[in-house]
Amino acid sequence: MKLDKLVGERFKEKPADCVIDSHALMIRGGYMKNVANGIYSQYMPLKRICKKIENIIREEMDGIDGQEVLFPVALPASLWDESGRYESVGSELLRFRDRNNSRMVLGMTHEEAAVQLVREYANSYTKYPFMIYQIQTKFRDEARPRAGLIRVREFTMKDAYSFHTSQEDLEEYYEKCYDAYNRIFARAGIPDVVAVASDSGMMGGNLSHEYMLLTPIGEDTIAICKECGYKANMEAAESIIENAADSNVKELTKVHTPDMKTIEDVCKFLGEPVEKSCKAVVYQKNNDDEYVVVFIRGDLDINETKLTNYLGENIHPAVITEESSIKAGFIGPVDFRGKAVVLFDNSLKGANNLSCGANETDYHYIGLSMDRDIKDGVFGDFAKITEGGICPCCKKKAISISRGIEVGNIFQLGTKYTKSMNMTYLDKDGKPQYPIMGCYGIGVGRLAASVCEAHHDEYGPIWPMSIAPWQVHLCCLRSDDINAKSCADTLYDEMLKQHIEVIYDDRKVRPGVMFSDADLLGVPVRIIVSPRNMEESVVELVTRDKSVQEKVAIDKVLQRVKELIEQMM
Amino acid sequence: MKLDKLVGERFKEKPADCVIDSHALMIRGGYMKNVANGIYSQYMPLKRICKKIENIIREEMDGIDGQEVLFPVALPASLWDESGRYESVGSELLRFRDRNNSRMVLGMTHEEAAVQLVREYANSYTKYPFMIYQIQTKFRDEARPRAGLIRVREFTMKDAYSFHTSQEDLEEYYEKCYDAYNRIFARAGIPDVVAVASDSGMMGGNLSHEYMLLTPIGEDTIAICKECGYKANMEAAESIIENAADSNVKELTKVHTPDMKTIEDVCKFLGEPVEKSCKAVVYQKNNDDEYVVVFIRGDLDINETKLTNYLGENIHPAVITEESSIKAGFIGPVDFRGKAVVLFDNSLKGANNLSCGANETDYHYIGLSMDRDIKDGVFGDFAKITEGGICPCCKKKAISISRGIEVGNIFQLGTKYTKSMNMTYLDKDGKPQYPIMGCYGIGVGRLAASVCEAHHDEYGPIWPMSIAPWQVHLCCLRSDDINAKSCADTLYDEMLKQHIEVIYDDRKVRPGVMFSDADLLGVPVRIIVSPRNMEESVVELVTRDKSVQEKVAIDKVLQRVKELIEQMM
Repeated sequence: MKLDKLVGERFKEKPADCVIDSHALMIRGGYMKNVANGIYSQYMPLKRICKKIENIIREEMDGIDGQEVLFPVALPASLWDESGRYESVGSELLRFRDRNNSRMVLGMTHEEAAVQLVREYANSYTKYPFMIYQIQTKFRDEARPRAGLIRVREFTMKDAYSFHTSQEDLEEYYEKCYDAYNRIFARAGIPDVVAVASDSGMMGGNLSHEYMLLTPIGEDTIAICKECGYKANMEAAESIIENAADSNVKELTKVHTPDMKTIEDVCKFLGEPVEKSCKAVVYQKNNDDEYVVVFIRGDLDINETKLTNYLGENIHPAVITEESSIKAGFIGPVDFRGKAVVLFDNSLKGANNLSCGANETDYHYIGLSMDRDIKDGVFGDFAKITEGGICPCCKKKAISISRGIEVGNIFQLGTKYTKSMNMTYLDKDGKPQYPIMGCYGIGVGRLAASVCEAHHDEYGPIWPMSIAPWQVHLCCLRSDDINAKSCADTLYDEMLKQHIEVIYDDRKVRPGVMFSDADLLGVPVRIIVSPRNMEESVVELVTRDKSVQEKVAIDKVLQRVKELIEQMM
Repeated sequence: MKLDKLVGERFKEKPADCVIDSHALMIRGGYMKNVANGIYSQYMPLKRICKKIENIIREEMDGIDGQEVLFPVALPASLWDESGRYESVGSELLRFRDRNNSRMVLGMTHEEAAVQLVREYANSYTKYPFMIYQIQTKFRDEARPRAGLIRVREFTMKDAYSFHTSQEDLEEYYEKCYDAYNRIFARAGIPDVVAVASDSGMMGGNLSHEYMLLTPIGEDTIAICKECGYKANMEAAESIIENAADSNVKELTKVHTPDMKTIEDVCKFLGEPVEKSCKAVVYQKNNDDEYVVVFIRGDLDINETKLTNYLGENIHPAVITEESSIKAGFIGPVDFRGKAVVLFDNSLKGANNLSCGANETDYHYIGLSMDRDIKDGVFGDFAKITEGGICPCCKKKAISISRGIEVGNIFQLGTKYTKSMNMTYLDKDGKPQYPIMGCYGIGVGRLAASVCEAHHDEYGPIWPMSIAPWQVHLCCLRSDDINAKSCADTLYDEMLKQHIEVIYDDRKVRPGVMFSDADLLGVPVRIIVSPRNMEESVVELVTRDKSVQEKVAIDKVLQRVKELIEQMM
């Protein structure tokens, strides 16, 4: 490929709307173009990167006996009615009607389609286990697409679905897929991706893992134990708090706390640490606006995912009205009279001498003792795990909090879809059973952007050889010099002949322009042909990551390039 | 791949709703499954066929300097507003709204997206020419999906867009693409596809060709000249009729024709051939229901595409009301008083002694002489070309009519999209100009089905080696026989090692089941291992098309298989 014919603009200025580097570099480098909010077209370099990623994924999926299939993008709503998700999934599921007024959806995940495809086929235990997967366009109508390819509305995804006759068999396959995923990320150039336990969310099922590229710009928050290696998405991480009750138990006493509306204000006024308080956080259920009041230790935050899972329905921060009899700013667990679901976080268990609201304007209690003053409280784990907190696995105070980009996920789905969609097989005894499913996803574009996040400098991406748009970037400085040009042309032709993927820049532009374009394309090996080097019969060979910078005799350069490609692959 | 793990059902009975063979065989063979009207999921064999077709297309597109890109499936309506197609295209364009109530469409073709992608980049003549293409899912909300993969609503398509600074440059590239298309169809196993001149329809532009696989089950009708090789879609073929006027010119005379409502009835009553009549065909414009009356020689039919193109708007067969003053059954060109656009087909030019309606119930005229009786008639080419008709190219009466499946198309678009979307470049003199475009499409699934139509027998498809789901189908008859099984296992392992694509059937089933499954999968080379042949240390080698049927020594079989694969590729 000649660079002067490569469609796409490259430029220096960082676009104003790009908050992360991969987004800015992919726009600046002519990788992609915005078409609508969260929807991009891909130019050739990105398309080539994605094809290479897809091929790595395909090889690894085939390697664990996956069968590549294809599901539709546009699906009949009836399938999603069967699973119940047409109702239960929010407006990220794009619903529309076709010309015959039939209800349809755009596929954002394909559990229903997978079950539909194999429901009649897999009617006997002898057909199991099997895994089917596709690499296909998906649409998820995100409320806030952002960060370039990290969170988009339309994306290419590999989604795989496995079917089993026992939990043991699922677990065995899950393990295989777990390993295959590690190989995929390693081959794509980010071996340091970590698998963390995750919340299964709208997918249903029990055990699940997310693969996280740890980076400060990540959208996800991850708890990692420095002692035992436990890793979990913040959404899924159990919060363990141990309270040592004070020995001098105080009495419950109402105090006047004028104009203090936050628990921090009250604690300051009382001269107590915020841990010695019981604060209230109020939500409303999305369905019927019923209030949900959660009491939690004053220094902690609510993990809304855990709360949602507990309630089994979606919630939003409350708007507290006069009629609700809830005294915003003064809510407390004693004599609470509002109409609401009342819950207690485990962090309050056994605590005493706490301050809390008195359900009366300008009044708080001090001396709250949970065991003494709260009868029949419903306790649960609703708190966010914190930096330095207790590891749910090894119980040491060794939790550290990091941020990460989710580059893949694997779920043990159980029988959620096979039951709801009435897919059965006959077991050895001729009895009908529901198959057990697993599902396994990787977003191709997000993976490309994540690799760029992990490997770039201020001048552009530093693509790993395995997914680079080209292997070699050939620059001819001064293509008006007949010797240099003829040397570069020969090298170009020879590389094409030897199936080396090469992009050739023979434009009549300044070296600075040439190199900044090459930096933006991020091709791993660069050959520089120049009149000065011609005098010594050498060319310069540099890698994009600067680890190799050498002069090589012209007649040796192809051999050396092939060595480098092999080493870096 | 072991056949016993291949997901998908195979069965004997022809499904009731399949009217063409490829559809029935692809359902019976476990290639695909219906998900909604005109929407299918693909099982592994079809997905493999499609991937091979895509790779052939990709190689040929890259070979003519195409740059693979990716456009979105979901597009903002604003882009289609720019081109005017949001309004002009019918309900096959699926329009919907996203969660923010923004108008969107599902891409059925990507001219707008292509212009959007390169509009800023290609701002100077030095950037031209270039071609970008994608292989991507498309959605076309067909009113009547049918014939399996031949006419679906969702499909994978290769669509390419070229941009040029002159008509000559476009034509040169068009020619290259024309040849590349011929290579694609030849490589996919249907070298006998013919390119025919076509109507440009909603795409706009001037010259266009469709690639047709001639087959009686085709949806399209094609006129082919047996003398000069002229080929055109019926929709686009010019109709030429030469009338020899009678020398004894009769007078225009009104005759009583009670209860005769068709021109055939009248001609019979008058004892005249139907060619000696002028019939009326009535339409209404879709927009405002205005009537359009077309007079045409009695033996010919209206070509609605040509009529639509002439009018520049869509039409439908008329519903004639009392108020219209149009006398259905008795419409004639003399003293016609209805409010309508009145047109004459060229087939009436110079004719005389015709019968025609008298615009009065139960009356016709005889002795109509066009030149004498019709003043200021608007003539045009509105007739369908007929079997045995005059070739518009060599003027010989040598037209034959065939049917065909359109497997690809190429269009010279001109500046329709660049003008409407305001894409310009500066020419050598610094003047802004509109680029000239071409576009080039191939439907991947339809091509697969067409190959199946061209190559099958009653037992299943006969896939060409180049696109077959596997190269070799290995059958072990009596896998309970230890010698046969061990021989087949060894052959299987060896073929996997040598990267021969093999599907291995070692099920304990009757040979009849094994062979009928193999016929349905249509793999070109079959190896049959059986206890009887083991005694002679041979295996049977047969090709799916029966052209090769031989016994080969076990130690020679892989060599022979590789030869066959190479020969058949």
